[in-house]
Amino acid sequence: MTITGRVPPALLDDLAHSRAGALLFDALAARWPSDSDELNSIARYALLPAGKFLRPVMTLTAAEAVGGEPSQVLPAALAMEYLHVATLTHDDIIDGDLLRRGRPTVHVAHGLAHAIVAGDHLIFAAFTGLAECRAAGLRDPAVVESVAVLAEAGSDLCRGQMLESRLVGDITADPALYLEMARLKTGALFRAVCQIGALLAGATSEQAAALGRYGSYLGVAFQIRDDLILFADPDDTDKPTGSDLANGRPTLPVLMAYQTSDADTRLALAAALARRSAEPAEFDEFRSLLMATGALQGCQDHATEYGRLALDELSELPPSQSVDLLTGIVQWAVTTRP
Amino acid sequence: MTITGRVPPALLDDLAHSRAGALLFDALAARWPSDSDELNSIARYALLPAGKFLRPVMTLTAAEAVGGEPSQVLPAALAMEYLHVATLTHDDIIDGDLLRRGRPTVHVAHGLAHAIVAGDHLIFAAFTGLAECRAAGLRDPAVVESVAVLAEAGSDLCRGQMLESRLVGDITADPALYLEMARLKTGALFRAVCQIGALLAGATSEQAAALGRYGSYLGVAFQIRDDLILFADPDDTDKPTGSDLANGRPTLPVLMAYQTSDADTRLALAAALARRSAEPAEFDEFRSLLMATGALQGCQDHATEYGRLALDELSELPPSQSVDLLTGIVQWAVTTRP
Repeated sequence: MTITGRVPPALLDDLAHSRAGALLFDALAARWPSDSDELNSIARYALLPAGKFLRPVMTLTAAEAVGGEPSQVLPAALAMEYLHVATLTHDDIIDGDLLRRGRPTVHVAHGLAHAIVAGDHLIFAAFTGLAECRAAGLRDPAVVESVAVLAEAGSDLCRGQMLESRLVGDITADPALYLEMARLKTGALFRAVCQIGALLAGATSEQAAALGRYGSYLGVAFQIRDDLILFADPDDTDKPTGSDLANGRPTLPVLMAYQTSDADTRLALAAALARRSAEPAEFDEFRSLLMATGALQGCQDHATEYGRLALDELSELPPSQSVDLLTGIVQWAVTTRP
Repeated sequence: MTITGRVPPALLDDLAHSRAGALLFDALAARWPSDSDELNSIARYALLPAGKFLRPVMTLTAAEAVGGEPSQVLPAALAMEYLHVATLTHDDIIDGDLLRRGRPTVHVAHGLAHAIVAGDHLIFAAFTGLAECRAAGLRDPAVVESVAVLAEAGSDLCRGQMLESRLVGDITADPALYLEMARLKTGALFRAVCQIGALLAGATSEQAAALGRYGSYLGVAFQIRDDLILFADPDDTDKPTGSDLANGRPTLPVLMAYQTSDADTRLALAAALARRSAEPAEFDEFRSLLMATGALQGCQDHATEYGRLALDELSELPPSQSVDLLTGIVQWAVTTRP
């Protein structure tokens, strides 16, 4: 099976409707049927309807990029989605977020206790998924190494979440801390997702490590992209703007703007942030302030640089449609301009 | 190294001071040093001072019972403690418990967000610990199987926690549901703890499965023991009585008493439970009511039966000091009479 085809990089949202996406969706729905017990039902609520499947698609693509058979690593690809959704479930509790993908978050729909437990269950399901790769005929040493990589990434995600809590509301924080947070909170899972796909598909350790670094850099670019969308012209995006601002979450444009501004602008930025308002008029004013500091362009430069680092890591792989897709994902991550 | 010696079964609390306990304590303190980063520091707060180390001691003992070298499975034994403490950390949030081992629980000391994240980190650390067994020269297939066993046990723990939430405050619940809860919430980790020690030490699959069943039965007996201590004469135990009663947690003596009582006694039991009082006078009255129904003896009979089932599973193992210790742990679990 070949999972990659002519997926236009500018239309990454279509990934979920691609052949890989359909394969993943069918496997996910079969693994979490609607007539499950209570615990699995809550996990299913968290997992479905599915998001863009970006992480599991990348596991399949990384496997294919090193000459492996994507369908063999399917349980591992699903495991990546479980871990991702587990962290979303717990993060939503921590951040007090009420909506995700347009529906009540798990703790809103099912209560705090069940959301904690369902998140834990999804973490365990991720490791069950990795262990299932044995049945698919994958080599035990690669499975053990994948467990180590995923567990380490999981702990990094925890560190990233903790660092984010520390940065909330602190406009004076060093942008370098933000980049460290993005590396831990987003980059770590992208790293694991790519490295594990490669490892299980029999990559050399150099190839797997290079794909891991690719994922890590891409993850940081991806996180910066999320911030840039936040400050994008509302006419250009369907993502609600201002919510991260309203809950005081650290964003790179704001931290960079603060670092490079004079005292008056700093005061204005701090005051706007302290209001934690998601009112359109106040948000527009804040956005204009940011634009004037040049911070949005500075962020874009950062994203571009991380994207370049990610692409460099692909240079040793033989050319293939999979590598084209991994390249396209980077281009997609760095070309959304505010 | 031989970890078992003449540990008197009646003095299981001394396990932590045994040779195995010292080995585990040193390894735990080395793995979680006091000068850690914030996340590791909170994990350390949850882990230390350590409890009785019953679960990791059982992993070492199960390894030894099948002819293995306990020190080789040390990372896995520590992993069992991480998973146990992770679930305690999350359960304490869910149950709203404020104290554990005489200190503020993690969420009280460090806040809800950090307690969720530290619990997640400990789950990941458990799988990191299993993967580390590779470096100790253990066989990859056994490590992969251990990952599968631990992940399944983890999901069972989640199911047990969920079932407990459903049983809280429901005095009419079938005692069979309680036993199912105990099997999931307590038995599952005891099962994994023993099975993993055996698997990693090179046991046959029959031996590993038998030790797993031993652990599962023991876990249920252990959970019943906890309930019996709750209703023990306060002069005979240093465990605070009444707290599980006050938060409405299901206990086997109460459920059994309700099932076997006439309408008047049922009303009195339900009224006493609904008050959720931990007042000594009310508790004594409640205890007398239970004694009169014969439910405490019925519970003891259940514990004895589960203990017998556990011991049966040991019959195929060659006699050794390790098997004596596993036998002693069962005796200890079933001989604490109210």
